[in-house]
This record gives sequence, structure tokens and C-alpha cells, in this order.
Amino acid sequence: MVNVAVHGIGTIGKRIAHAVRLQKDMKLRAIVGYSPDATIRTLLEPRGPLYGVDLYATNEESLKKFSGAGMIVNGTLEDLLRSGKIDVIVDATPEGFGKEYRDKYYSRYNVKTIFQGGEKADVAEMTFNALVNYEKAFDKKFVRVPSCNTTGLIRTLNALEKFGIDYVFVTVVRRAADPHEYKKGPINAIEFEAVPSHHAEDVRTVLKNLNIFSMAVKVPTTLAHVHVVEANLAREVREEEIVKAFDEQTRVVLLDMKDYPATSKIIEKFRDYCRPRNDMYEIVVLKDSINVDGSKVRWIQVTHQEADVIPENIDAIRAITGIERDKWKSIKMTNESLGILK
Amino acid sequence: MVNVAVHGIGTIGKRIAHAVRLQKDMKLRAIVGYSPDATIRTLLEPRGPLYGVDLYATNEESLKKFSGAGMIVNGTLEDLLRSGKIDVIVDATPEGFGKEYRDKYYSRYNVKTIFQGGEKADVAEMTFNALVNYEKAFDKKFVRVPSCNTTGLIRTLNALEKFGIDYVFVTVVRRAADPHEYKKGPINAIEFEAVPSHHAEDVRTVLKNLNIFSMAVKVPTTLAHVHVVEANLAREVREEEIVKAFDEQTRVVLLDMKDYPATSKIIEKFRDYCRPRNDMYEIVVLKDSINVDGSKVRWIQVTHQEADVIPENIDAIRAITGIERDKWKSIKMTNESLGILK
Amino acid sequence: MVNVAVHGIGTIGKRIAHAVRLQKDMKLRAIVGYSPDATIRTLLEPRGPLYGVDLYATNEESLKKFSGAGMIVNGTLEDLLRSGKIDVIVDATPEGFGKEYRDKYYSRYNVKTIFQGGEKADVAEMTFNALVNYEKAFDKKFVRVPSCNTTGLIRTLNALEKFGIDYVFVTVVRRAADPHEYKKGPINAIEFEAVPSHHAEDVRTVLKNLNIFSMAVKVPTTLAHVHVVEANLAREVREEEIVKAFDEQTRVVLLDMKDYPATSKIIEKFRDYCRPRNDMYEIVVLKDSINVDGSKVRWIQVTHQEADVIPENIDAIRAITGIERDKWKSIKMTNESLGILK
Amino acid sequence: MVNVAVHGIGTIGKRIAHAVRLQKDMKLRAIVGYSPDATIRTLLEPRGPLYGVDLYATNEESLKKFSGAGMIVNGTLEDLLRSGKIDVIVDATPEGFGKEYRDKYYSRYNVKTIFQGGEKADVAEMTFNALVNYEKAFDKKFVRVPSCNTTGLIRTLNALEKFGIDYVFVTVVRRAADPHEYKKGPINAIEFEAVPSHHAEDVRTVLKNLNIFSMAVKVPTTLAHVHVVEANLAREVREEEIVKAFDEQTRVVLLDMKDYPATSKIIEKFRDYCRPRNDMYEIVVLKDSINVDGSKVRWIQVTHQEADVIPENIDAIRAITGIERDKWKSIKMTNESLGILK
Repeated sequence: MVNVAVHGIGTIGKRIAHAVRLQKDMKLRAIVGYSPDATIRTLLEPRGPLYGVDLYATNEESLKKFSGAGMIVNGTLEDLLRSGKIDVIVDATPEGFGKEYRDKYYSRYNVKTIFQGGEKADVAEMTFNALVNYEKAFDKKFVRVPSCNTTGLIRTLNALEKFGIDYVFVTVVRRAADPHEYKKGPINAIEFEAVPSHHAEDVRTVLKNLNIFSMAVKVPTTLAHVHVVEANLAREVREEEIVKAFDEQTRVVLLDMKDYPATSKIIEKFRDYCRPRNDMYEIVVLKDSINVDGSKVRWIQVTHQEADVIPENIDAIRAITGIERDKWKSIKMTNESLGILK
Repeated sequence: MVNVAVHGIGTIGKRIAHAVRLQKDMKLRAIVGYSPDATIRTLLEPRGPLYGVDLYATNEESLKKFSGAGMIVNGTLEDLLRSGKIDVIVDATPEGFGKEYRDKYYSRYNVKTIFQGGEKADVAEMTFNALVNYEKAFDKKFVRVPSCNTTGLIRTLNALEKFGIDYVFVTVVRRAADPHEYKKGPINAIEFEAVPSHHAEDVRTVLKNLNIFSMAVKVPTTLAHVHVVEANLAREVREEEIVKAFDEQTRVVLLDMKDYPATSKIIEKFRDYCRPRNDMYEIVVLKDSINVDGSKVRWIQVTHQEADVIPENIDAIRAITGIERDKWKSIKMTNESLGILK
Repeated sequence: MVNVAVHGIGTIGKRIAHAVRLQKDMKLRAIVGYSPDATIRTLLEPRGPLYGVDLYATNEESLKKFSGAGMIVNGTLEDLLRSGKIDVIVDATPEGFGKEYRDKYYSRYNVKTIFQGGEKADVAEMTFNALVNYEKAFDKKFVRVPSCNTTGLIRTLNALEKFGIDYVFVTVVRRAADPHEYKKGPINAIEFEAVPSHHAEDVRTVLKNLNIFSMAVKVPTTLAHVHVVEANLAREVREEEIVKAFDEQTRVVLLDMKDYPATSKIIEKFRDYCRPRNDMYEIVVLKDSINVDGSKVRWIQVTHQEADVIPENIDAIRAITGIERDKWKSIKMTNESLGILK
Repeated sequence: MVNVAVHGIGTIGKRIAHAVRLQKDMKLRAIVGYSPDATIRTLLEPRGPLYGVDLYATNEESLKKFSGAGMIVNGTLEDLLRSGKIDVIVDATPEGFGKEYRDKYYSRYNVKTIFQGGEKADVAEMTFNALVNYEKAFDKKFVRVPSCNTTGLIRTLNALEKFGIDYVFVTVVRRAADPHEYKKGPINAIEFEAVPSHHAEDVRTVLKNLNIFSMAVKVPTTLAHVHVVEANLAREVREEEIVKAFDEQTRVVLLDMKDYPATSKIIEKFRDYCRPRNDMYEIVVLKDSINVDGSKVRWIQVTHQEADVIPENIDAIRAITGIERDKWKSIKMTNESLGILK
């Protein structure tokens, strides 16, 4: 039984904490929050998914805020790290803070840490994907799980590596805000990102040496990112081979564009399954978007920015602690606990 | 045990069917679908909330479509009505179709029917709200549950009836589409509705003789409707009285605007509770929006268009069949089964 | 000939500067900018509407930025104020800065100043509307033109004052960002504003003692604000009287909802007129939204947030300098120069 | 002097009609409308850009509608074609109607016709772009101007043809509706288009044999389309060569992403120029998005869906009638009349 804490209870952190609770070989010993906002209070309510979990505060100032709001806090992050109660902490604090907390706190204690993709790759010893490099995490102290777009691209591109990949060009059409956000725009514009976008480089932190180039725009929607991909493979392929490759890849699901003509229809499918928070842990490849011409393959895929990294974090906990040394066993446990389709 | 069927498996129908399945005194004997679309197939999958429920088709043509798609269909709507298997059918077919189906099918068989607010009031013998007229449904064959906006207004205005209501003016700021929809706009406009909007008249089908006037605009969002209300009461009141009145009303929840400054933050709260499909059955009144000046009371409230009528439909099933003649017992059973906050 | 400068070249400032240039009795002597952004550079291009106008910088630091960008700057705001070249300066700097600049600069020099509605009312000696209090501005040094929503409400309510107004309740459905903005949200939510919204109080800075209450929400659109109004008049009226009152009011235009069912269709009308920047200086009242019941009158109106205050600023320049002491002559000159419909 | 009529007064038709009026060598003899909607009435008002132009009706039924609305109609389309008053008619009727009108009307009379990109390529003898095949239109009766996205791609790709183009992959991020529309969605989704999108094939109707593949998604914005392009050239190039090639291409403008980080900022630039309807006839290439790696070139470009085809239509009128046989003279006249930047 691994004792886990999650620091940073936002979009990603609250999902990881909930997912840890659903694992048979893990115990969620604590969550570490920064301020007594509405989210953390809801999660800790009797009806909330984190009811009963011990609450800690990021620091002394933060602790005062929680106390001031009448919440029971068990101490600070440092108290928790020092206590010996936890084996792993997952850092899901806002972009860039992870590194600060690593230097200030995590590096001082014998607690392994998993960082998120908002941090630069050098925050950790490696960037992790369960399918690609599970075993490399065994002896590490610091591991990073890349962001949603990167994870989405790794899953599908990894499925095609068997054919050899000469070059990949991807346009990332980014959702501009998460569903709960109301201050971020644009309301009616398409925003440009500097070229190349950071996604290609980030994919290479896991799929080393992959020849990939990425460009990105941001659009006024909150539901999911869309990737338009062209891959030049090392040999000619048939469409069935590509379909089969995606179909056999765990956490990649094929749906038809004619049934699911927009991201809203895909997300609704996961609402219909009654998935908590309509989380879609899988990458959806639109089957009828797959286009093969000699060694060129193109397709459209959809990434749920709030959820696709959650199973990777769970696997990363198993890998970094070594409690499960067979990656397929870990993946299977994670998938079953979260109701992942395949 | 009441045997129930649901006809029309869209936004409302799929929720009612799922909610029926959660009741101890009801059995969902069948769903009646129109075509084998992606939604109905997801719902009937082993992971779907309607797995194992018997499927019927609206008519012969529709039956052929299901069979053509390889789905097992048990017969047509008429076969089902004739079979004697069901006591109540809930009609959640698209706006205006309910009346057609009533004349063609429902009226011929000994099966009570509950219609939705998309139908005109004269489709049924009465328009229902559990809090207001539960008992009047006992001997009826046809009952109508009004639409989401109407239901939302009835709940809060009913709570204020004890003070006497001289006049109500409400501006309904409508969400223009549901989350899954992608063809409906506007993308960047505010749309006007004819004055008065239909909401006031519809409220009066339940709160008879209420002096209420409503105006409406449609705005580019999918999450929830917002009502801006001013009520002139028959006497001067204090703010605490109003807060108490709302607080004591079931299915009305008070939240603070400072914690929940936008509809997106409110809906996220129900995602955080892991409610299926983030359904918010409750009407949220923004506590700090309540403004009292003599006998004038103003407030802002939020209605989840996909969900607030669901508990009313469940209560309506109990009332129309008479299996539970105590309205508070029915409300309590419904609330508990759906995890309604209060 | 009045010599005018405009300080702050954003959404409002650039329009005022352009409008000043179109007046026969005014000369735009200078614009004062804060930084060499893309907007100011476009406006000063040979094709831009401010080509040839002298550029000044807010302060020394700002002057360096312009020089650094290779732009010709004639000096700082203080140089300009001191030069004796200008009679009036219009301050259109960001919310709250006007007061700072007043204390630091404007109050020291013999230059009259017009502030915008982003400033609090006490920034000036009076809040101005051409129709209501033109003459009161004659001997003032500091005058404020209220914001777009306030100006819109003043125009229509002023038209009804002849009937006596007992009470007004207005719901302001605010556009959340201007068309050029891309960082502001919400993308998919309705945002609540504290109750009462500031609009009622602001209307009273011009229509003294008016009994008015306002509430507001923000919605994801960029085109225009919408007001849903209910006014209780001092006597019973007929619909024709209200239509006539609005029809006779300058800068108020009646359009039919059936022809213009959304704000996008109204704005498109002004694009079709080839108005610069599709500026709609007029308040549009939807004629078929007007509903009269005894002494109660309701209607929906539309305010173009970027433009409706522009003619008021032009009139304010004439009033504060006293170059035109007949308000109707000023209004007529302004209207003709801007192509205002009536 | 060429006598021109425009049939279909929607988004494109109203702009072409206005542009024709601005040409010294053309006379707008008539517009042909379908119904007396608000747009056509505004355009024909004294303040409208088409004031004084003769109005005809598509057919008898349509004529009755105009007469019924009290508008003066000079006859039907057929009357106009038969009259000998016009040399060219520009068809800007809704998608697919052009072909119908061709067979029913245009083909019977000695009037040359220009169709729009909503029609299939076989509606005409050739698909036109002023830069590429101006001279080929000289002896034609039916010419088609391709749609906005196609025109945008032709302009920039034509500029690179001198380097040799081996292959182009483009992702078209489409605006889902025009600014005036309010019924079309999506409000909060990204919609997928069938693969390949039609754009590549359409580009090849002008740039024959170009090896190009296109994919497309639709996003909730109304302002402009965005193209993310990767071109594989026949030889290695330097960034300066590409910048120069675009810079030398008429109707292509280079802007910096750092100044114009979103489509909304680009469109605002053309509002600032006081362009009628903020029409952007030019394709904007984001200069700092240009990325060159050996023979691979990538960039982001922006197409204003309402306006970029307008100058092409004007040139097409000159080419099809042969009144100007020097394409550069035509382009220059068009550019100057519309204020095109270069």
C-alpha cells in the first residue's frame, strides 16, 4: 500500500486525488491546499469525493486562511513531508510553482514527487508515459507527467512507431479555457501561438529523437483540444494497419465522425456513461478521419485536457515507488478502476 | 412497484429513464427510441446507465432503423402500450410531438402519460409541480411537467407565496443550446424573444392567478439559464425572512456569488460532487444577490436546463399512479435517490 | 474654433479623436498616447483616420517608448497642457487613471477636461448628457460623460420623463468584451454582478432623483449591451404615446425585432451603412418589444458600447467651452457630422 | 464602361455590388434581390451604399414580395437579362443556386456570368484568380471565383511557386458563422470536417496539379478563417526569400503576431482604417510565424471570409469582358478603388 498525497487541488489535482482513492494498492493520506476556495470545500463535504481525507496547507500563511475559514487543517506541507506518512506526493500546483516547491520542500525529504506538464522537463529526472517508459521510473525520485496535448500525441504516435516514423506535422487546435473558467477568453477570436509551439519538443521528452513539428492556435471553446496530424511513416501502409494499430493501443478509442461530428458530442458520450465530471481519459481518434496515402497518414484526434493525464499519474505512482513492476498490470489496474473503455 | 416506460431518449428522456431506474418503487420496463443514434447506443452499452432495459421503437419505420443497425428491438410503442406491461409512460419526445402521440397512441390505451414542458399546457389535464399541486394529479390520466425555466420560477416563487405576491417581473437570460449541441447559435450575439416571453403564462399553469410578467433574451452559452427577478410582495419583509423562505424550500439551494461568480463555477460544483452528467436538480439562488427594499425583493437564480425537471417527473409518476399519496414522502424518496442537496 | 486634444487612444479615445476631426468648429490639435502599440500606429498611418495629428506622450517614460519605436513625439502631456495650444482635453485613459491625471496634470493648467464614465462621478463637477443638462456645463472646468450603458438608459428614460416616472427596474445583459479583445472571457458562462449594479446610481448622476434599480449579468458576446426595462409611469399611457416619445428622441432609433432578431443583425445594419468601425451612436429600441399595460411600460433596447458616448463627448466639448450655447444646434451639428440617423 | 448587375444580395453580393460602384470603368446597373429583407432595404436607403441602383427580383414570386413591401422593382431577373442593359452579371446567390439559375436564365441570354465558390467548379468554364489566370478568362462566358479559403491559399502558394512546390499540407481552422448570423453554431465545440476537406481540390482548380492536402475543423468564432500551412518546396530556401516572396505578392500583407496576437486584433486594424464593413481584402501572413527548415516552410495566415474574394470578382469582370487586357492594370485599379494596402 502506497501512501500518497496530492498538492494543489485544481483541475488536475482534484482528479488525481479522486483517482488515487479508487486504487486498491494506494491510500490517499492527504491533500495539500493553498486556500479555502469553494472547490476544496465541496470536495471535502460528506457528498464530495474527498470526504474524510486529511487536509494540509501549502504553508503557514495558507494554513491561517484555512483556519480562518473554520476548516480543520492538519499542518503544513512541510509537516506532512516530515511526518513520514507519505511515500509519494503528486504536485499539481499552478504552472511553474512545482519547481519552486521542489527546491524548497520536496528535495529535502525522502518523499518521491510526481510533477505535471506545466513544469519544464528539467524539474524532474524524466518525463513519463506508462506505455513508453514505465520501467525507467523505478529508481527515480522526481518524475514528470507531460501535459494533456503531449500525452495525447504520445499515445497515438507510439502506436505507429512500429511502422517507423520519419516526420510528424501536427496542428494543435487548443481549447482556450477549462469549463469552470469565466475570466479567460477569447470570446470571439482565434489566438495564435508562437511557432513552433512547445508541443513537439515536449513529445520528444518521451519519444526521444522523434522528428515532429507542431503549430498551435487557441479557439473559444472549453471542452477539448483537437489535433490535426500528418505522419510520414518509414514505409507504405494500408488503412487497416493504422486502424488496427490505434485499436490495439490502450487508452486510444476509435469513434466515427458521422456519429460524433463535434467535440461536444464526444464529451456528451462520457456524460452519458455517467463518468465522474464527464472525464474522458482516452484519446479519441476519429476513425473516418484516417487518411492513408502511401506512407503518409493523416487523422484527427481529440484530447480531454482535464482528464487524459490522470491515468498516467496513477501509473507513475506505481512506477516511481516500484510497487508494481509490470507496466501492463499497472495499466490494467488503472484502467479498470477508472472505467477506461480499453 | 410501478412499471414505467420513457418515450424519447434525448436530453430529458435519458435522464428521466436513468432516474426511474434509481427508484425503489419503480421499474423501468422499457425505453422507446426513434432512431439508433449514438446516444441511445451508448446508454444501452454494458457501461451505460440503461444497460439491460428493453428497447422499443416509436413506430414501424423506426423499428426497421433499429433492426437495420443490428439492435434488438422488442416492438413498437403501440406494442408496448397494448402489452399491459406498463402503468405509466413518460413522453419526452421533441416539442409538439407529444400531442400527436397522445392522440395517436396514448389516449387509446390504459396507460397514464406524463408530458414535458415543450408541449402546450392543453396536452394534459393539469400542469404539475410536486410542491404546489401533487395531490391534484391523483386521478389524472395526462399530466404535464412544465419546462426548466418555469419549474425554476415556480420553486422560488412558491417559497414566497406566504408573504403574498402582488407582482413579479422576471428577465430570463436563456442559454441558447445544450452542451452537446453544435449546430445551434448564436456564436456572438444576443437574441431577442417576443414580449412577453412564454414563461410567465407557463408559470401560471401551476401558480394560478399569479401576477407575473416575463421577458427573455438568448445568449451564447450552454450551461444554464439565469433569472433576474423582482417580486413585489404584499407586505414589507426583512432580508432574513426571504433567505429563510428559500432555505426552507426543498430543491432550492443558496450559494454565494463571491464563491460562485458565474454559471460555470456552479456547474463545476456539481461536477465536483461527481453527479452523473453534472446534473443540478436544484435551483441555485445567489444568496448575496438577494436585495430587499420594503416589499420589493430582487434576486438572481440559476436553472440547469437539462436536469431541474427530472425530480418533478419522478414525483409526477408517483402522484399520477397514486402509489405514494404523501407528497413529502415522494419528494424525500426522489431527493435521496438523486442525491439532491436538500 | 476649439482646439482639442484626446488623451488615451483606446476603444473610446480613438473614436472621439476621429469624431473631433469631423467637426467644423473644432480642431484636433493632438493625441496623447501611452505606448506605441499597433492601434496608435495604424491610426497615424497615411490611411489612418488620425494621419497628420500631432502625437504627444503621457509622460517621459512613455515618450521614450515612442521614440524608441521610431515615432515622432512632440512632447509630453504636460508640455501640451502648458503650451496653450489646446482649450479642451478629453481624457479617455483606462478606468481610474483619469482622476490621477486630473490631480497630477489637468488641474494645474487652464485646460478644460472631459472625463469618461470609467471614472467615478466625483472626478468632475457634473456628469453630462446633451439632452438633459447641456447648459449646466457652460461654466465648468471638469465634466464627465457617463458610460455606454448609462448613456443608453438616460436617452430613453429622458424621453419618458414627460409622463412622470415612478420607478424603473432594468436588467443589463452586458457584452463581456469588446470586439478586439481576446484575453477576456467568459467563453461559456454567464457571470453575475453584485446587486444593485452600478448603472442605476450612475443614471442618477444625470437624471437626479430618478427611482431606478439595476441588476446586471455578463455574457459571452462582444457586440453590444442589451437592456430589459420595466418602467412604472405616473399615469396610464397608450403604446402609441411611448412609440412617439422614443421616435421623437434624438439618438434613439426604433427597429423591429422581426427584422433585427439579434444584436448581430443590428450591428450588421451599421456595417451595411459603411459607418466607420460599424459605430452605432444611436440607442436601438426594439419597437415590437414595447409592451404597455396601464402605467407599466416594458421594452428591450440595445447599446453599442464602443460608440454611443461619442456624440455626447462632442457635445460636451461645445458645452464646456461655450462655443455653442444652443444645445439643439450642437446636437444637430454632431448628428450630421457622424451620420446619425436621427 | 461595363454594365454590371449583381444577383443575390447577401454577404458576398452586397460587397461586390458596392465595389462595382467604386470602379471608374464599370456601372452598377442593377441588383437582383430575392426578398425584401432588412439588408436590402438598408443598402438602398439614401444613406446606404447602393442608393439609387435599380432593383430587380429573382422571379415573379419574388417580385410580388418586393411590391408587397412597397419597394419599387424594375422587373425580374429575366427582364433584366433580356433588356440588353447589362454585359455581365455576378451571381452571388446561395450555394448551389447558381447552377440552377445558369441553366434556367444566364445560359439563354448574351450576358456573361461570374459565379462564386459556393458553386461546384463545373458551373463555369474556368475558376479564376487574378494573379494566376487572368488572361484565360478573356473569351469565356462563365467564370467562377473560388471561395475565401481557396483564394487565400492561392495567393500565398502562388507566391511560392517560383521555388517549386512539392507538397502542401494545410489545416483550415474555419470560422463557423459570419458576424451577422445568430442561428448557426457551435457555441462551445470544435466541429470536424470530412477528410480531405474540399479546399485542396478547390485550390487545384486554379493551381493545376499542385500536390496539396487539406483538413479542416470549424470553431466558434465569426471573424476570420485561419490556415496553418506546411509547404515542402523543391529546393532549400532562406527565411528572407520567403518573406520577400510574400511581401512582393499583391493582396498579401505581413503582420507581426506580437502586434496582432489574434484574429480580433487583425480585424480591428481594418476597423481602425475605417474600411467599409471592416473588410479585409488582403490575406494576412503572420510574419513571425514563418518557419523555414531546409526546403520546408511553415506559416499561419488569416483570411477574411466576407471580403477577400471581392477584388477577384472585380478583376474577373474586367477579364471576362476584356475591357482591360493587362492584368496588372486591372489589379492596380481594383486595389486603389478598394484601398487595398498593397
